[in-house]
Amino acid sequence: MPEAYQDKIDLEARKRGINIMNSAFSKLLESLESGEELKLVIPKRTLTNTIFDPEKGILKLGVSKLERRFLDMNEARRFMQTLVMASIIYKALIENEYPTIRDLYYRGKHTIVYRDLEGKQHEENTWDEQAESDAVLRDLEVMLGLLREDLMILSKEKGKVVGNMRIRSGNDIIDLSKLGHGAYAIESTPDLIEFLDVDAEFVLVVEKDAVFQQLHRVGFWQKYKSILVTGAGQPDRATRRFVRRLNEELGLPVYVLTDSDPYGWYIYSVFKVGSIQLSYESERLATPKAKFLGVSMSDIFGYGRKKPYLTDEERRNYIIKAKELDIRRAKELMKYSWFQTNLWKREIDMFLDKKAKLEIEALASKGLRFLAFQYLPEKIQTHDWIE
Amino acid sequence: MPEAYQDKIDLEARKRGINIMNSAFSKLLESLESGEELKLVIPKRTLTNTIFDPEKGILKLGVSKLERRFLDMNEARRFMQTLVMASIIYKALIENEYPTIRDLYYRGKHTIVYRDLEGKQHEENTWDEQAESDAVLRDLEVMLGLLREDLMILSKEKGKVVGNMRIRSGNDIIDLSKLGHGAYAIESTPDLIEFLDVDAEFVLVVEKDAVFQQLHRVGFWQKYKSILVTGAGQPDRATRRFVRRLNEELGLPVYVLTDSDPYGWYIYSVFKVGSIQLSYESERLATPKAKFLGVSMSDIFGYGRKKPYLTDEERRNYIIKAKELDIRRAKELMKYSWFQTNLWKREIDMFLDKKAKLEIEALASKGLRFLAFQYLPEKIQTHDWIE
Repeated sequence: MPEAYQDKIDLEARKRGINIMNSAFSKLLESLESGEELKLVIPKRTLTNTIFDPEKGILKLGVSKLERRFLDMNEARRFMQTLVMASIIYKALIENEYPTIRDLYYRGKHTIVYRDLEGKQHEENTWDEQAESDAVLRDLEVMLGLLREDLMILSKEKGKVVGNMRIRSGNDIIDLSKLGHGAYAIESTPDLIEFLDVDAEFVLVVEKDAVFQQLHRVGFWQKYKSILVTGAGQPDRATRRFVRRLNEELGLPVYVLTDSDPYGWYIYSVFKVGSIQLSYESERLATPKAKFLGVSMSDIFGYGRKKPYLTDEERRNYIIKAKELDIRRAKELMKYSWFQTNLWKREIDMFLDKKAKLEIEALASKGLRFLAFQYLPEKIQTHDWIE
Repeated sequence: MPEAYQDKIDLEARKRGINIMNSAFSKLLESLESGEELKLVIPKRTLTNTIFDPEKGILKLGVSKLERRFLDMNEARRFMQTLVMASIIYKALIENEYPTIRDLYYRGKHTIVYRDLEGKQHEENTWDEQAESDAVLRDLEVMLGLLREDLMILSKEKGKVVGNMRIRSGNDIIDLSKLGHGAYAIESTPDLIEFLDVDAEFVLVVEKDAVFQQLHRVGFWQKYKSILVTGAGQPDRATRRFVRRLNEELGLPVYVLTDSDPYGWYIYSVFKVGSIQLSYESERLATPKAKFLGVSMSDIFGYGRKKPYLTDEERRNYIIKAKELDIRRAKELMKYSWFQTNLWKREIDMFLDKKAKLEIEALASKGLRFLAFQYLPEKIQTHDWIE
């Protein structure tokens, strides 16, 4: 097949992935040749080995490791799965393929037929469900110390960006300030993006795609030189990595705007410290300096000398009563150490006291210009955020 | 507020919306002034008034209309709601707002306090749930004969496009062939997009975002001059309108690629004839000439002289057993007149016989180049699609 459209950036990334895999598995080959026991050493991805690093401000894996031995009956299946997955990915790297995680599941799915010592025939599937192959892939990620995106594995993405900057992606230069009413859909491999000209003072991450579109359309990022991002709900890995890079490499402050409820706080938390289930990703995906800009309880009800942004009547019309699940979630979040700052305690206490939540759309319905040209800039200017 | 960032295209669209609303409601004003009975005449959005137009090949509303009378006790509430919604939208048009449907719900949500003839006080909410305000908005759409997008009402969008064309959106010209590894996220108001330079021979609509990304990354639309679109699952209105315009205005054939199962067929059906619940949109959103390219049952199992694309072993590994729900859905689809062509009957019969479904990813896992450079072009070249 002609490779005319393969871009150089992808080919270089493939080479890096191939080198890392080569050195990681060469030890296994040496063991095989010298007759030593075959084993893989993999950091443990268990909850007990997940720790919050207060200095870095992110979730990460602890030092515990597991050894996966070929000759251990309990481990042989997982050992085989790990090698099946590694060989599929390695082959895909060499053959310029772009598998998805669903692909990897299909590519590896087959039945192994073998006979035991008595000559009886057995059948064993490499894996049955994608949950199994996904877990194997995660093992490989922590073992190799990289993310699947580094191995040119693609996935469904829903992150979007517009703003005052240009980027290089693949062979093209894209001006993120010249996208009309639409936006730039962020690629699966955001590490391959090169930041070119940046004329922005901050990054605003908006939970909801519809609000992102409203702010874009009304010219928010043009008036306040900035970069506008949405993860469209629970953010995917590419959006998180993209935001992290904007913060880390460009030094831009990152403000997160979500609904005023525990679900919104959790989305902020995923951007800031990472997801609890997949803590190994946080070292690359989390943005520990991200700030929760709102909507906060004190925006709704006021606090001390701060006046609320809503009138009594607006509160009556806009506030949604918290459900049992919201209360439970809030109490859950209180346990996490990064929610144990004074401001967060106050926020969660107010929520538990008022049992009230509010959507960003309620502020937009007061007037999109109120949201874009009063609420947001005022919050940023007066440092009225929560960390 | 400065309106420096308001683009001319939006302002012109607003004027059109304002004019249509003015003429639609001026009759009501005349009735009010002359003391006539106040009523609104609205096409019925019921299922019994939903018909399939075999000539146009789309679902549409029949001729039945309902009269909503102000002085009818059973209608007064809905009458009031319709006017509340109309006035909110009218105000938003004039004030250069961009409400979302969630906004409209909040903007109109309040409690009306009134006294009855005996002087007893009553309270009535304009509406309680968004389902109510959404239904009112749909009434307005059919009454005015336009879509909410024409009234500058935005919504969450997930459609993406890349390909050999340039478009004008807002004040910008965007080259959809120069987006690197990313894509263009389609705007909420696709009617405001202007098609500029098109150098494409067809449109490929891909059900799944991850597969869209794979085909993009491997250079599919570059090798086969085309435009690649995804609706990322069940397509939203903007994606459907965008695809319709590509077909109608540019004369490009539209091929739809989905999983081989009743859910995939339904996604194709929504692109082609419209959604059954919202048939009034179809006149603008449906693409009756869209063709189902695959994955088809004969791709999996072969048929007559056609050889299957999968080997026995691949079938064993890739096929998913159909569930009861799939079978029920397939039988449901058989009832729709646009699934009653010979080819569709054969397709559904084969499915019911084999009780097997297959995901596009299974073909990608055979090799992305197989999918992109063999399966797809061969299907198009040999007209191996279903209509």
